[in-house]
Amino acid sequence: MEETTMDNHPSKTLATFAATLQFDSIPDAVVRRAEDLLLDWFGSALAGKSGRPVQTIASFARQMGPADGQSEILISRGSSTPLFAAMVNAASSHFAEQDDVHNGSVFHPAAVVFPAALAVAQSLGSSGRELLEASVVGYEVGIRVGEFLGRSHYRIFHTTGTAGTVAAAAAVGRLLKLTPAQMLHAFGSAGTQAAGLWEFLRDAADSKQLHTAKAAADGLMAAYLAQEGYTGAQRILEGAQGMGAGMSTDADPARLTDRLGERWALAETSFKFHASCRHTHPAADALLQVVTEHQLRPEQIARVTAHVHQGAIDVLGPVTDPQTVHQAKFSMGTVLGLIAQFQNAGMKEFDEAFNDVGIRAFRDKVGMELDQEIDTAYPARWIGRVTVETVDGQRYEGRVDEPKGDPGNTLSREELEQKALRLADFSKAATAEEMRSAFERLWNIAEVAQVGALLR
Amino acid sequence: MEETTMDNHPSKTLATFAATLQFDSIPDAVVRRAEDLLLDWFGSALAGKSGRPVQTIASFARQMGPADGQSEILISRGSSTPLFAAMVNAASSHFAEQDDVHNGSVFHPAAVVFPAALAVAQSLGSSGRELLEASVVGYEVGIRVGEFLGRSHYRIFHTTGTAGTVAAAAAVGRLLKLTPAQMLHAFGSAGTQAAGLWEFLRDAADSKQLHTAKAAADGLMAAYLAQEGYTGAQRILEGAQGMGAGMSTDADPARLTDRLGERWALAETSFKFHASCRHTHPAADALLQVVTEHQLRPEQIARVTAHVHQGAIDVLGPVTDPQTVHQAKFSMGTVLGLIAQFQNAGMKEFDEAFNDVGIRAFRDKVGMELDQEIDTAYPARWIGRVTVETVDGQRYEGRVDEPKGDPGNTLSREELEQKALRLADFSKAATAEEMRSAFERLWNIAEVAQVGALLR
Repeated sequence: MEETTMDNHPSKTLATFAATLQFDSIPDAVVRRAEDLLLDWFGSALAGKSGRPVQTIASFARQMGPADGQSEILISRGSSTPLFAAMVNAASSHFAEQDDVHNGSVFHPAAVVFPAALAVAQSLGSSGRELLEASVVGYEVGIRVGEFLGRSHYRIFHTTGTAGTVAAAAAVGRLLKLTPAQMLHAFGSAGTQAAGLWEFLRDAADSKQLHTAKAAADGLMAAYLAQEGYTGAQRILEGAQGMGAGMSTDADPARLTDRLGERWALAETSFKFHASCRHTHPAADALLQVVTEHQLRPEQIARVTAHVHQGAIDVLGPVTDPQTVHQAKFSMGTVLGLIAQFQNAGMKEFDEAFNDVGIRAFRDKVGMELDQEIDTAYPARWIGRVTVETVDGQRYEGRVDEPKGDPGNTLSREELEQKALRLADFSKAATAEEMRSAFERLWNIAEVAQVGALLR
Repeated sequence: MEETTMDNHPSKTLATFAATLQFDSIPDAVVRRAEDLLLDWFGSALAGKSGRPVQTIASFARQMGPADGQSEILISRGSSTPLFAAMVNAASSHFAEQDDVHNGSVFHPAAVVFPAALAVAQSLGSSGRELLEASVVGYEVGIRVGEFLGRSHYRIFHTTGTAGTVAAAAAVGRLLKLTPAQMLHAFGSAGTQAAGLWEFLRDAADSKQLHTAKAAADGLMAAYLAQEGYTGAQRILEGAQGMGAGMSTDADPARLTDRLGERWALAETSFKFHASCRHTHPAADALLQVVTEHQLRPEQIARVTAHVHQGAIDVLGPVTDPQTVHQAKFSMGTVLGLIAQFQNAGMKEFDEAFNDVGIRAFRDKVGMELDQEIDTAYPARWIGRVTVETVDGQRYEGRVDEPKGDPGNTLSREELEQKALRLADFSKAATAEEMRSAFERLWNIAEVAQVGALLR
C-alpha cells in the first residue's frame, strides 16, 4: 500500500481533517472549553491595549490599511479589513502574557487563532457555530504542528509565531470553506511564511507582538490565496525542504496526525493564572505552596532553587536584570519575588513592583537548576518544584504536579470572568458593564446566527 | 577592547552603514549599475503581469488594502499604500525568472529591493537620488546577509525570501531616514519575520511569488515600525537565537561587514539572460558554445552531461518531469533542450515549446553530475561545463567561465532595453512607446526631484 501511504502523507491528512471537521462531531465538553478559551482570549486581547508595541502595530495598520471594514479592532473600537483586524488583535493578545498555552507544544493558540478567526467570521457573517468550529480546527492543527516541530525548534524559534501561522491558516481556511486540496495549499503557503526567532528576548525587544500579529495575518493571507487557487507545497511540514527539515532537528511527523478527531488538544490547553511567561508558573505555584504553608516573608528566605526543565533555562536564563515590565515576566527571580511578597504575580504586581528594591534583592536569591525528572516529563507535564532555604537554616520543598490553570486544575467560568474583568480594568479597554454584556454574547456564541462585534 | 568589539557587533555595523550611506560616497560606476539594475527590474516586474499567482496576490491586495494611494501597482496601473504596492510589484518581479541575481549569495536583490523602495519613494515624494541611495543600501545589506547565511541555508531556505526581508527593510529604512539605532531595530523586526522554504519546488507550487511579495512587504513593515520606536533584537543575524543559529549551519558573521563602503556588491550582480533558473545558465551557455561551434542539431545529440555545483542538483534535481512553464525553468533537461533546438531559452521558447515532444525527448538525454572544481568555485563563480556525446560517437566539451549577464560578460544599456521591451511585449503590460518613455525617465532618475509614477 505504498501509494496510499504516499497519498495520505501527514500534511494531507491534517489538512483534510481541518477542511472537513463538523461542529456536530466535536464533543460538547470541547465546545464548552472552546467558549471558555474564546472568552479568556477576549480579556487578553483587551489587556494589550496600552502596550506601546501594540499601539505601534495599530498605527501601521492605520497607515497601510482601510479605515473601516466589517472586522473589529478591539483595542481602538475601530474596524478594517480582516487582515488588519487580525494583525492588531493578535498583536494585543499576547502582550500581557495572560493568554492561554498548550503545554505539550509550548504554543499559545488563542493569540493567533481567535484574532484571525473572529476577523474573518465578522467579515463573512459566519455563525457562532462556524466560528467555534474554525477555532477548534485552528487549535487542533496548531498544537499538532507545534508538537511535530518539537523541543529543538523551540530552542530558537517562537512556536507561537511559526506553528501559529499554520494554525491561523487552518482556522481561516475552515471559515472560507476550503476543500481539502485547497486547505493543503493553504498549509503550504502558511508554512513557507512561518517565522519568529527568540533572539529578541535577550534585548527585551518588541518582537513577540510582531510574531503573533504576523502569524495571524500571514495565516489569513495563506487561506485567502488558497481560496483563489494559489498553490503551496504539499508537504510543507514533513518534506525534505519543509518546516521540520529547516527549523527542527527532532521533528516527528507522527505527531501531526495524532488521534485526529479522537484526541482534542484544545481541551488540554491551560489558562494562564500568573501574568508572566508560562515557564515561570510551575515554580511560582510551588513557591506559593511553601510560603503559604510555612507563613514565610521574603526577608526570611535566603535562597530559592527552582528545579526546572531545559526550556525554562533557555528562555528565562538570558534575563538576569530585567529593565521593563515585559522583560520582568521572563525573569524567574522577579516572578518568585512577587509571589514571596504578594502571594500573587498579576498585571498589577508587575506594573507596580517589578523593579522595587525588595523584589530586586529577592531576585538575586533565586537560581534555576535543570531537573532530570521535570525535564523528562516536559512538555507533556509542567511539574513545579522549588527548594527554599531560610535565613535561619530551615529547608523546605514545594511541589505542584499541575499548575493552576492546567486542565486538571482549571479556572471556572466565574474565575475566567473575574480574570477578564481585571484585565479590561487594568488596560481601561472596556467598562465592567461592556464586559458583562460581551460575556453574555460569548457564552451564547454557539446560538448566534451571525458573529457581530463584541464591543462596538 | 572587548567592550568596543561587543558594541560594534556585525548587525550593528551593517545597520549603521545602511543608515548613513550617502549618495555622494557611492562611486559613479556603481550608481550607473544601479540604474541598469532598476531598468532591468522594471522589465521583470512587468513580465509577471499574466502570472496566475501574481494575479491572485494582486486580488488579495485589492480585498485587503486601500484602492488608491501614492504607490504604483505596475501590472494593474492601479495604486495603493506602499505595503500593497510593494507586495504586488514584488510578486510579479520574480515570476518570469528574468530578474537579476547575485552569484555569491544566490540572492535576487531586484525582486525585493526595488518594489519596496519604489513604493515608499513614491509615497514619500523622495528624490531619484534618495531612491538610488536606498536601493544601493538594500543590495549591499541583502547580499551580505545572503553570504552570511551561506550554502547550508540555501539548501532549505529561499535566500531571496529570507535575506530579502532584511534587504527590503534596509532600503525602506534609508528612505525613512532611520537613525542607526532605528535601522538596527528594523533589522531585528525584519530578521524575525524572514521566511521561505524550497519545499514548494517539488510540487511546482506558487510559493516563489509569495516569498518575494512577503519579503518586500515584511521588510517595509519592519522599517515603518522602527520609525515609530518599535524595537527588535540587536543581533538578529549573528545572535545565539538569531537567523544564523536557526536557519544555517555554516553562517559566517565576517561576511556581514565585508569591506563595507569599499566593496560594492551591487556591481557584482548579474543580469539574467536565459528565462530560467539561474542554476541552469552556466550549462546552457556551455552547451550553446558546443552546438554553435559544431553546428549540432538536437537529433544529432545522444547525451549531455552538465557538470554542476551541488546547489544546482539540490534545486533542479527534484524537477524530473515538469508540468508547467514555471516548473520547466527548473528543469536542466528542458533548458538544454531549448538551447539545442532554438539556441535560445527565452520567455517565448518556454511558453511555446517546453512540453514539445522533441524537447521532452532531449530532456531525457540530459544528466547532471557534481563537479569538484565547479562546486569549489561556487558561489563566487558560476562555471559552466558540459560534455556532449553525439549519436555518431563524437564527444565535445563546452565551458564558460562567466555566463552571459555576469559582471565580466554583462549586458549593454541597449541590450537591457531590448530585454525589457521583449518582456513587456510578452506580457502585454506596456506598449513599446510607454516603455521608451519609462526608459528615459529611468536613465535620468538621478536628476529627478521627486520619484513619480513610471507608467500611469
